[in-house]
Amino acid sequence: MSETTSRLDDVMQRIDADFEGSVDRLCELLRIESVSTDPGHDQQTAACAEHCAGMLEAMGFEAEAVETPGHPMVVAEHAGPTEDAPCILYYGHYDVQPADPIELWDHEAFDPVLTDSEHGRRVVARGAVDDKGQVMTFLEAFRAFKETRGSLPCRVKVLLEGEEESGSPSLDPFLESNVERLKADVCVVSDTGMWDIRTPAITTMLRGMVYVELRVHGPSSDLHSGMYGGAVVNPINELARLLATVHDEHGRVTFPGFYDAVATVPEEVRTQWRELGFDEDGFLSAIGLDRGRGEDGFSTLERTWCRPTCDVNGVYGGYTGKGAKTVIASHATAKLSCRLVADQDPEAVLEGIKEHFRSRLHPECRIEFECHGCNPAISVPTDSSWLTAARGALTDVFGREARLIGTGGSIPAVGSIREILGIDSLLVGFGLDDDNVHAPNEKFELTCLRNGIRSHAAMLEAFAGLR
Amino acid sequence: MSETTSRLDDVMQRIDADFEGSVDRLCELLRIESVSTDPGHDQQTAACAEHCAGMLEAMGFEAEAVETPGHPMVVAEHAGPTEDAPCILYYGHYDVQPADPIELWDHEAFDPVLTDSEHGRRVVARGAVDDKGQVMTFLEAFRAFKETRGSLPCRVKVLLEGEEESGSPSLDPFLESNVERLKADVCVVSDTGMWDIRTPAITTMLRGMVYVELRVHGPSSDLHSGMYGGAVVNPINELARLLATVHDEHGRVTFPGFYDAVATVPEEVRTQWRELGFDEDGFLSAIGLDRGRGEDGFSTLERTWCRPTCDVNGVYGGYTGKGAKTVIASHATAKLSCRLVADQDPEAVLEGIKEHFRSRLHPECRIEFECHGCNPAISVPTDSSWLTAARGALTDVFGREARLIGTGGSIPAVGSIREILGIDSLLVGFGLDDDNVHAPNEKFELTCLRNGIRSHAAMLEAFAGLR
Repeated sequence: MSETTSRLDDVMQRIDADFEGSVDRLCELLRIESVSTDPGHDQQTAACAEHCAGMLEAMGFEAEAVETPGHPMVVAEHAGPTEDAPCILYYGHYDVQPADPIELWDHEAFDPVLTDSEHGRRVVARGAVDDKGQVMTFLEAFRAFKETRGSLPCRVKVLLEGEEESGSPSLDPFLESNVERLKADVCVVSDTGMWDIRTPAITTMLRGMVYVELRVHGPSSDLHSGMYGGAVVNPINELARLLATVHDEHGRVTFPGFYDAVATVPEEVRTQWRELGFDEDGFLSAIGLDRGRGEDGFSTLERTWCRPTCDVNGVYGGYTGKGAKTVIASHATAKLSCRLVADQDPEAVLEGIKEHFRSRLHPECRIEFECHGCNPAISVPTDSSWLTAARGALTDVFGREARLIGTGGSIPAVGSIREILGIDSLLVGFGLDDDNVHAPNEKFELTCLRNGIRSHAAMLEAFAGLR
Repeated sequence: MSETTSRLDDVMQRIDADFEGSVDRLCELLRIESVSTDPGHDQQTAACAEHCAGMLEAMGFEAEAVETPGHPMVVAEHAGPTEDAPCILYYGHYDVQPADPIELWDHEAFDPVLTDSEHGRRVVARGAVDDKGQVMTFLEAFRAFKETRGSLPCRVKVLLEGEEESGSPSLDPFLESNVERLKADVCVVSDTGMWDIRTPAITTMLRGMVYVELRVHGPSSDLHSGMYGGAVVNPINELARLLATVHDEHGRVTFPGFYDAVATVPEEVRTQWRELGFDEDGFLSAIGLDRGRGEDGFSTLERTWCRPTCDVNGVYGGYTGKGAKTVIASHATAKLSCRLVADQDPEAVLEGIKEHFRSRLHPECRIEFECHGCNPAISVPTDSSWLTAARGALTDVFGREARLIGTGGSIPAVGSIREILGIDSLLVGFGLDDDNVHAPNEKFELTCLRNGIRSHAAMLEAFAGLR
């Protein structure tokens, strides 16, 4: 055991002794249906913000749920030991994805269930890991410090967003109006994954995203396919034809200019990634597949970490009920997202998408676009003293060196916090690849929750030594 | 006025005098939500069968709603004037299509509303024309005979099906078990359209149909598109790619063997159709289109009357709610139907569809098929004395000669009645192209209802003179 963790014996013992309490508090948070994309859940989403602010107040923070044009922003501040102690901003989000398809959940998505797993126990519920479970890793670390030592070793600010799953529309304006209030030395974000259940990781590359909904309109109303079939344009056939043009035969995305700003990853980085020993077979077999599919000439890790991609996330049109209805739909809709890598301009990508579809559209059709998100990729500096301190703390807790990794996901807030507040982020998360993020039966291993709490305690202590 | 109609003065006067009663009775029928494809409506569908049987009993029929493995079959019989009078079987269906998309209805779909139209008044509701309104045209003609003369001029049998909109699974077994009970000289079906609002029509060509649902499976569960996007097969992209292969660049369907049995329509028939003066611009502009789209080298009329086609009727997969969800769906579904013409074997077409998709499927995907209907095209003899009598009666009522036309729609019962009962059908219907069949705001012009009732009275009288 290292010096840091032995100095922290009291805090670590408290974390272990109160772990069932931590689990209970996480379950309480998971019961609040804070689905930010669905206006029918607005009241619950607001209630979730109040609940988070309440938890922080109980730990000695000044905390409030601040109104925005969208969902509230939870903002909290703890004075720490001294005025000149390092100041750490923690970012997380209390909103969650919708639960659908609800019929595929083994239990009700918002009624958390503890089940046995090969790793001990896990909690199953929407938001278990993304991001409520991860938010609890730092909140419970704060609690352990508070309860053993009466205070925190650093000054701490907390920003919990309620719109991460719906494109963060209120985040940038809020940051712009609160630059002073949110000022800090570094930002810590727990919304990413570990390398594997025994090996911690710090994520240094995040893909950006453009998410766009497209709707193809044809006839002015739904038609009987007997009367009109084969004689008029069919918007579903047309949409399928358009979507089929998104990739070429080499798995490359065909939007104009899509790869123009994509940098080649240096050979030494690719070599380093190969040496990580990524278990591609295991990654794929866990989701029932034998082979990957993507851009020719790149490994699965490269395809998800450093190559831009395009996937259709949803499609609907015409009759979708049971049995048969012989209709030609008047319109059909697809939701489509591109993951972006460093130097791609999201606005330019969005324009390329629109141009691609417009130029291929049948003249009797009309197309509408609605953008649900547009943010660039992020790289985090790997040579800062904060990262070194965090890495050391993680290594202490896990007894294994923390890996520096990329991720296919996007956390728009990290870009905004860099641009607007001028603060770099440390992405230290405790999720696993098989956590079913955004899917039915989302779960968080309790061993990850516990190690996450311990890691945040160790990191906070390590940060305290930096000034 | 011809001899037939002047002989019918009393009946026609009764039809006119009681027309508001006819409208009320139609509205009562339309209020019963007999959606046969939706198990949630089973009780209402059964209630609709009982309601129809009750109406027929009140007109002096022996009537009952007979149980089947699916929805009940309404069977009724009226002895007519003498044992050797011609016997006419009337076929119709009391089930209707689902109302969705319900948000596009101006009123509640099952709460019929009478509104003003350029042709007088119309009734707007699901089933207004397909087929409840059309069923009422012959039922109300029977009622007028009963009320003025105490009986009908022919022996009459009635068969009302409750599964026409869901592929008629119980029809063939029912016909096979009831050959004697349903025996008749000719069958009359009112489930087709007029040439235009002033010109009656008898439909002599009906397309067949193969309706199949296909589901493409990929990963074993829904995935986060950030973690997996660009690295694994996406079932929605894959489904789109498959659907995009259904037509070639000439608008021809690409399923293997699809056109093998398709007969070329003789040049004299094509010439005759051109002389019908079909208003293609009006047909298209009514649905908001400038140009048709279909198989190269054929007119809109030919594309819908005598050429086989394929249309996607519904598609869904992944996230279909508001806003964004960054998911890769584990599966995606399309509902697809082919309209068939004479001599195409529906079973062979179904096999061709399966072969087409299976041979193009990505090896990491799996595809399932579910057939919702499989029936051949029908041609009705144009030289029978029944058709001549019906045509004469229609000409008397409308003062214009009835056209002999084709239609793009399918009425599987007509084929079954021919094959199992050995009875040809006369397809005399009173719908219009703009009735929004299978679409929101389905309607039936009251002038069509009235002329339909009058036509059925005149036809019944004309049939009585045939033996």
